[in-house]
Amino acid sequence: MDKITFSSNEGKPIRCKAAVCRKAGEAFVIEEIQVDPPQAYEVRIKILCTSLCHTDVTFWKLDSGPLARFPRILGHEAVGVVESIGENVDGFKQGDVVLPVFHPQCEECKDCKSSKSNWCARFADDFLPNTRRYGMASRFKDSSGQDIHHLIFVSSFTEYTVIDIAHLVKISPEIPVDKAALLSCGVATGLGAVWKVADVEEGSTVAIFGIGAVGLAVAEAARLRGAAKIIGVDLNPDKFEIGKRFGITDFVNSALCKEKTISQVIKEMTGGGVDYSFECIGLEPLMEEAFNSTRTGSGKTVILGMTKHRLPISLASHDILRGRTICGTLFGGLKPKLDIPILVDRYLKKELNLDGFITHELRFEEINKAFDLLMEGSTIRCVLWMDK
Amino acid sequence: MDKITFSSNEGKPIRCKAAVCRKAGEAFVIEEIQVDPPQAYEVRIKILCTSLCHTDVTFWKLDSGPLARFPRILGHEAVGVVESIGENVDGFKQGDVVLPVFHPQCEECKDCKSSKSNWCARFADDFLPNTRRYGMASRFKDSSGQDIHHLIFVSSFTEYTVIDIAHLVKISPEIPVDKAALLSCGVATGLGAVWKVADVEEGSTVAIFGIGAVGLAVAEAARLRGAAKIIGVDLNPDKFEIGKRFGITDFVNSALCKEKTISQVIKEMTGGGVDYSFECIGLEPLMEEAFNSTRTGSGKTVILGMTKHRLPISLASHDILRGRTICGTLFGGLKPKLDIPILVDRYLKKELNLDGFITHELRFEEINKAFDLLMEGSTIRCVLWMDK
Repeated sequence: MDKITFSSNEGKPIRCKAAVCRKAGEAFVIEEIQVDPPQAYEVRIKILCTSLCHTDVTFWKLDSGPLARFPRILGHEAVGVVESIGENVDGFKQGDVVLPVFHPQCEECKDCKSSKSNWCARFADDFLPNTRRYGMASRFKDSSGQDIHHLIFVSSFTEYTVIDIAHLVKISPEIPVDKAALLSCGVATGLGAVWKVADVEEGSTVAIFGIGAVGLAVAEAARLRGAAKIIGVDLNPDKFEIGKRFGITDFVNSALCKEKTISQVIKEMTGGGVDYSFECIGLEPLMEEAFNSTRTGSGKTVILGMTKHRLPISLASHDILRGRTICGTLFGGLKPKLDIPILVDRYLKKELNLDGFITHELRFEEINKAFDLLMEGSTIRCVLWMDK
Repeated sequence: MDKITFSSNEGKPIRCKAAVCRKAGEAFVIEEIQVDPPQAYEVRIKILCTSLCHTDVTFWKLDSGPLARFPRILGHEAVGVVESIGENVDGFKQGDVVLPVFHPQCEECKDCKSSKSNWCARFADDFLPNTRRYGMASRFKDSSGQDIHHLIFVSSFTEYTVIDIAHLVKISPEIPVDKAALLSCGVATGLGAVWKVADVEEGSTVAIFGIGAVGLAVAEAARLRGAAKIIGVDLNPDKFEIGKRFGITDFVNSALCKEKTISQVIKEMTGGGVDYSFECIGLEPLMEEAFNSTRTGSGKTVILGMTKHRLPISLASHDILRGRTICGTLFGGLKPKLDIPILVDRYLKKELNLDGFITHELRFEEINKAFDLLMEGSTIRCVLWMDK
């Protein structure tokens, strides 16, 4: 990557372009906005590229509840370069290539210091604030001086953004930035769930509910672990051809199961159930089916899909007692600062396939077209380039 | 232990005493029965002592369904000595001290060869037959020549019984046999759940639902692992004093939680929930409360209690996604032939406390009194001695 030079805006606001969503479900408008300088523990970065994820669509459509906030700058998968740093920022300097991540890692709390999980008890799961340490304070203003809301501590649909260091990972400048951007959210979640949470072993059988970017990343990681059979479950038969490129060996079209449940079909295909199942959509009935698809004695189900409705799921206590496990994870159990550099390294060593996830590339100004493609289901990941 | 000599009954039936239950809920009658010689893959053993477990009470009360069978010889926690062996029996010879276990280990199937779980796919969870490889064939006959049913492949309330080698573990003759008998079922289940399934680490917090033998064994194992706080939950305040001797540090009387749920009380006691919870009773609402008692990010719930009603349990999908795990296990995840000798060794090294579990000792003929004590809740384990 060519070195980027910055004119000296340190400590001053920057004026730049951003795609602002003014109202739920409305087209983005490219506006000139003001990005404030970073405060203590914050870094201002220039976004190089950003990709679109279904969580952006979820927040874009959200028209009620405390998480529905407009005007807003969406986007949370991206790579950028550090432009300036606030006080008390160690480990980042101007010119560093960085990856923002919605999932925090303070590096100081009990959970961050433990290897058991990727939870951060200090900055626990709370998507309400705009900025991590400053509550509803925003670093974005529109041309009339009105605050613009952030999205889950990233907001990448803008030329510049401000990120708390708990949400920022320094990465090798050797990796192409569009490939690295995939590791901000969905693809990393799928890879991590196989690697860190399920710990899938060679020769095992796997079922994946939902063949989007997360599900394909699960397949890619299961393939790398040497899984013998990788079953993809989706309503859209077009996903099946794509899935084959990521190691999916068998398909179940959930619309064509007729009077059987998906889990019955999977049990018949595998002589009693898969070793591992992954729910990558966020629908409670599919979480139950994922659980029911695993084998007695040692089957393990990992929930990755973000549920919108927060409904309960119902499991047979008798099935749990007979050696089954169900668990869930945010960001695939990855500790961002520790594990993303490892994934970058595996990509650079040509072990990990990230290239196949990028099906479309557009200019930042074409963001509304990118959203349409995502909602049509015709992209896995569309990368928006800021300077092309 | 003194060496036991057997008169040569090899290949012939043995006549001996057994406590036969003729009808659900009726008192046991000590009868003279005939115990057939062992068939291929079977061993006939002389029982030295047997202890009583709540599962015996469950089967004793059972008056309908395919598992309700009478006349029957109950009992499944015991230690014996090999009297004779059938064909194709390797690894056992006359005079060996052995422990029968209801949970099979064939040593040949995919699961037995895997270290992932203690499931045996070949002899999968099936409590219907009398003998493992011979279906409903019984090795017991009463004085009128009528078959007597076995119980979960053990049937230890008799002087002699016949056990399939998949259900038999050779143990060191150095361990007192009454202590060893505890490792046949409940105590081993609790120890294994902490050691093999939850893998509780030093400094962690633990909640135990149900302070019976299984729950106390969970406490003992958690204490050995260095847990910082071990919370016992029970309706019976008498259990609290007993619990202290096994390392329980805090108590919740579930009858006195008032308008709060048990999980709310536990979360308040632990600043957000325990690291590990264990359900040792088999009641679905308590399984849900055990799940709700664990901390976000990494909480793990292990279900040990045998559910009688096979009802579903309802879990918040949102809670699962935030890093929680729920799993279950039969026999505490222990592979009997591999792991019981390790527990015996830890007892002999004076690391593991087994002595405290035995609150009563009676002669075999006093079995009805022992049952009364168990149902009153005034024993943890009552050992019946065959020759005293």
